[in-house]
Amino acid sequence: VPLTSAKPRCMSDCQNHDSSVQRTHFNLFCRTMASKTPVGFIGLGNMGTPMAKNLLKNGYPVIATDAFPESCKELQDSGAQILDSPAEVAEKADRIITMLPSSPNVIEVYTGSNGILKKIKKGTLLIDSSTIDPAVSKEMAVAAEKMGAVFMDAPVSGGVGAASLAKLTFLVGGVEEEFNAAQELLTCMGANVVYCGQVGSGQAAKICNIMLLAIGMIGTAETMNLGIRLGLDPKLLAKILNMSSGRCWSSDSYNPVPSVMEGVPSANNYQGGFSTTLMAKDLGLAQNTATNTRTPVLLGSLAHQVYRTMCARGYANKDFSSIFQFLREEEGQ
Amino acid sequence: VPLTSAKPRCMSDCQNHDSSVQRTHFNLFCRTMASKTPVGFIGLGNMGTPMAKNLLKNGYPVIATDAFPESCKELQDSGAQILDSPAEVAEKADRIITMLPSSPNVIEVYTGSNGILKKIKKGTLLIDSSTIDPAVSKEMAVAAEKMGAVFMDAPVSGGVGAASLAKLTFLVGGVEEEFNAAQELLTCMGANVVYCGQVGSGQAAKICNIMLLAIGMIGTAETMNLGIRLGLDPKLLAKILNMSSGRCWSSDSYNPVPSVMEGVPSANNYQGGFSTTLMAKDLGLAQNTATNTRTPVLLGSLAHQVYRTMCARGYANKDFSSIFQFLREEEGQ
Amino acid sequence: VPLTSAKPRCMSDCQNHDSSVQRTHFNLFCRTMASKTPVGFIGLGNMGTPMAKNLLKNGYPVIATDAFPESCKELQDSGAQILDSPAEVAEKADRIITMLPSSPNVIEVYTGSNGILKKIKKGTLLIDSSTIDPAVSKEMAVAAEKMGAVFMDAPVSGGVGAASLAKLTFLVGGVEEEFNAAQELLTCMGANVVYCGQVGSGQAAKICNIMLLAIGMIGTAETMNLGIRLGLDPKLLAKILNMSSGRCWSSDSYNPVPSVMEGVPSANNYQGGFSTTLMAKDLGLAQNTATNTRTPVLLGSLAHQVYRTMCARGYANKDFSSIFQFLREEEGQ
Amino acid sequence: VPLTSAKPRCMSDCQNHDSSVQRTHFNLFCRTMASKTPVGFIGLGNMGTPMAKNLLKNGYPVIATDAFPESCKELQDSGAQILDSPAEVAEKADRIITMLPSSPNVIEVYTGSNGILKKIKKGTLLIDSSTIDPAVSKEMAVAAEKMGAVFMDAPVSGGVGAASLAKLTFLVGGVEEEFNAAQELLTCMGANVVYCGQVGSGQAAKICNIMLLAIGMIGTAETMNLGIRLGLDPKLLAKILNMSSGRCWSSDSYNPVPSVMEGVPSANNYQGGFSTTLMAKDLGLAQNTATNTRTPVLLGSLAHQVYRTMCARGYANKDFSSIFQFLREEEGQ
Repeated sequence: VPLTSAKPRCMSDCQNHDSSVQRTHFNLFCRTMASKTPVGFIGLGNMGTPMAKNLLKNGYPVIATDAFPESCKELQDSGAQILDSPAEVAEKADRIITMLPSSPNVIEVYTGSNGILKKIKKGTLLIDSSTIDPAVSKEMAVAAEKMGAVFMDAPVSGGVGAASLAKLTFLVGGVEEEFNAAQELLTCMGANVVYCGQVGSGQAAKICNIMLLAIGMIGTAETMNLGIRLGLDPKLLAKILNMSSGRCWSSDSYNPVPSVMEGVPSANNYQGGFSTTLMAKDLGLAQNTATNTRTPVLLGSLAHQVYRTMCARGYANKDFSSIFQFLREEEGQ
Repeated sequence: VPLTSAKPRCMSDCQNHDSSVQRTHFNLFCRTMASKTPVGFIGLGNMGTPMAKNLLKNGYPVIATDAFPESCKELQDSGAQILDSPAEVAEKADRIITMLPSSPNVIEVYTGSNGILKKIKKGTLLIDSSTIDPAVSKEMAVAAEKMGAVFMDAPVSGGVGAASLAKLTFLVGGVEEEFNAAQELLTCMGANVVYCGQVGSGQAAKICNIMLLAIGMIGTAETMNLGIRLGLDPKLLAKILNMSSGRCWSSDSYNPVPSVMEGVPSANNYQGGFSTTLMAKDLGLAQNTATNTRTPVLLGSLAHQVYRTMCARGYANKDFSSIFQFLREEEGQ
Repeated sequence: VPLTSAKPRCMSDCQNHDSSVQRTHFNLFCRTMASKTPVGFIGLGNMGTPMAKNLLKNGYPVIATDAFPESCKELQDSGAQILDSPAEVAEKADRIITMLPSSPNVIEVYTGSNGILKKIKKGTLLIDSSTIDPAVSKEMAVAAEKMGAVFMDAPVSGGVGAASLAKLTFLVGGVEEEFNAAQELLTCMGANVVYCGQVGSGQAAKICNIMLLAIGMIGTAETMNLGIRLGLDPKLLAKILNMSSGRCWSSDSYNPVPSVMEGVPSANNYQGGFSTTLMAKDLGLAQNTATNTRTPVLLGSLAHQVYRTMCARGYANKDFSSIFQFLREEEGQ
Repeated sequence: VPLTSAKPRCMSDCQNHDSSVQRTHFNLFCRTMASKTPVGFIGLGNMGTPMAKNLLKNGYPVIATDAFPESCKELQDSGAQILDSPAEVAEKADRIITMLPSSPNVIEVYTGSNGILKKIKKGTLLIDSSTIDPAVSKEMAVAAEKMGAVFMDAPVSGGVGAASLAKLTFLVGGVEEEFNAAQELLTCMGANVVYCGQVGSGQAAKICNIMLLAIGMIGTAETMNLGIRLGLDPKLLAKILNMSSGRCWSSDSYNPVPSVMEGVPSANNYQGGFSTTLMAKDLGLAQNTATNTRTPVLLGSLAHQVYRTMCARGYANKDFSSIFQFLREEEGQ
């Protein structure tokens, strides 16, 4: 049974942990020596590469691959071993992290003809950090279980910056007994690792958060725009909202109005941050999930459509807080 | 000029304030003696009555009136003098607070045949705490200025409970020189008094906050419902949202899902709190203001329509967080 | 009573109508002779000018005015007498038509210091063809009745082209007994004159039609765009919709997709037709009316916001069918 | 190549068609004799059963199956042969029609372990009349082509009544050369058979129509409700809309207001017709398709959410025109 496989995996790094004194010795040992068993990493994009680097920094040998060979160069230079396919990675590593753009990529990497499951070892721990449909996560978990492996979903909150600084939040779904084993790796790459429940729960939590974020952001942009047109000073309005019941993360930590806050995309012409096109993609996922569970999401749907419309009107690559700019009167009008 | 009229009014309470030592003496004097000049109060509803009582508690003689004589009884028993019309109140008080249900009531009380402006004294300070269209506030200010008086809008945030406990927040718009004079009275009835800018700015800030609140609440209800259907524990989901970018006042301070928080309407079958019908009314105001200023409010409009639909389906008198219940599958489905 | 004043007015044109034979004689007489009494016309904009010209063509002497003297030139050249103010027009004509941009203009022209009601003759018939809030129409009717005059609302459907060709549709609200008197004039300027009920009903019908039109147009644009992206030929898709339950005026008579139909704005780069900014204005009226009557209009509100957003993004002066273009992917994306 | 297989299939019915004289003889022959080759029919629900009966009435032997054996009884009594699985049907018939509830059913019936493709004969014509995602139709077409068969999608417009009366409209997608062969069968069950383009086009057209229908219906309900609240007579309002630019199928052929029209569900307490839950399901399909093609559908999405909300509030089994009732003020409010 895969559930009991957790210990041997832990053991592989830690031969001796009888007492707390010894544990400290052991931890020191682990940190300094390359005796840790290798970790597989599949998907070396903008997020995957810095994540894998943080595993290397923490002393884990990394065996990696990507559909685009050129994406592997940077990690290879950092000391990772590069292989040709997910199947080859699965032959060599019994802990594998995947970080892929969308559901079809995940299905291909796990169940394709050169996929992980073709050569997976019994007891392998699979952690998928892609943001995908929770239903696909559940399918992958079933397929993994048939091979004697364990699949967990662990999508992230936080962008490229947080990935580089190992400040990501991981939302983890899967068998609770395996959570510690996953946490060991995820803490190398993130500041928070939250257990959300059964397989798919990490995706569910991720999707819920992004939907509410989108609603709050559009709402904040509309509200700030309305207040400004009514003659209010934007900084003062933000301050009033933030001490009142209108307060939300978009108003107090990521205000979309230029000049209200520093260090946010609105202060930098909506460069950087989280792009409108990625927001639209994630909201599409939220919409699909809501449709499949027959859940009414009136504002969630409209938020999706607003971001989709923005993509059609030239805002695809701007930060999603550029909704404020989108709603403003055009110059010359 | 009305602006210079502030001093005489202050003077009426404070004969002597040459030095800070003397000021302390003076303040003690003011608090303990009934020498304060009377304050007019018009509109003795659920909010107005406890507000006026707090003026009495702070030693201000109150001269009050209401369109419904029976509404005056409670305040009369508390020691207020009751007169027959706004005009009569204006004859006797040079500081008047109004707390009325909607724009037409405000227009009538100020400019009607027995209205305040018919008998107002030069230099009178008028403070309107009703929630109305900022355009009406501006009209009233112009009309008051013609009579040598000063009008300020000071709508409140907080309900009947906050009114009783003098914990309201006042959002004040008007001439800045008069703000101190208004603050003196408003601090008797509220915990926060915020200066928002020129006349109408208090209303504008109030409307902005309520619109963003409504969006955040519906968004939170949709999101919590979606998460629950995806198998997440509601308390855990709320915790995750509140540590992430989906966080908002409705998720962390007024969660609409029964059992997630204590002491909120959702924990009490959506009794108490802020009713759906009042929310729909305020959102109507936000919509009018947005229409008049040609401001696109896509989510704000939809939030308005959702609350209006709830009113049509039997939710008028429930707290506005009952949107969660409205979106849930009916029993027996 | 104004209601009985209808006959004298009719009589002024038609001395003798005892039998159908005589009526025919009379009609001929009316058409050929300039013995008709003058008609007042206030508001000589893009719509008002061709409407007034059609009265002239039908043999009615026209006495007109406009807030902008330069607007009067064209009608003066056509033979109308130009006066300085609505009050002066009211002194000379006992039938007056008004065609103004919005509610405040109507209020000013009727009740302002140089307004119609200042010098109105008893028994005058007032017909307002402006598109305004039905509540304002009702106010004007009350004010007119106090002066012994009759006010009817008669907003039009159809644009500048229809106005020139006397093909407008008039939606008439007011006392039924006066309908014939109004119809006599309106048939000179339109092809259809529909009696809708009490005062304000014309406006109500107009607002209802425009709201459903906007919903149908946006829906058609979204649907055509979706079908095209799914690989359907636009002409074929339009044909299928038009023989099915998706059929609407926007799909079968004013299709927003270039190349599907000829002679519509979409075939002419969205020039001409009914501008997005006017649509947004009329939808604002619909929204106000819905808010005042507490009617939920979920799609109606969103349609309003979509057109308002288009105005902010540079589509203000294009025909309202340009929503199709607005939703399309931008070139280079 | 499957494309050339059309003729042999035709031939199987028509041994001789060298001249038009002979063709007439042949047609008579076909109509009167039971020599027609059998047609497979899979999916004997409310729609499938009357459709298959119409094939029997037209002289086609029918070989049928359904996942629920009890659903087969009625058709068996009408003379059809019942088999145990889609695979068995495919062994015996070279023309097969499927009519199933949703995409997963279609995938199972075609590609499952007892599916059609397991035992399909080369040259078989497969016609799927289910309403499903066009992407699934395309997948099935590819899978069928690999087996030397031809797949066409032919979803229907019209309900159970139209199915019984052979008055359905079929929207057909697939290889144009096969259209005649499909039409031969479909005309037995429907009044209109429209060729829409390549495989998936039938589904695309169906989805487009249903989305625009939903938007038109909600828009009509909102508009009629607004007009009624403004004092207009509903029949008169419907008449005005139907002669104006607000006209749509929902206003002129299926008006949602009781008493405006006869013979529609609104005249019968919203019984019969097309249920809200089926509308919500089809709109979910439209939403998925729009999401996958990145098409903004602002009103289409909201219409989906409104019908989804109605399902949550007890309207699942009422006709979709009950949106009018849903928006009305509840009694006792």
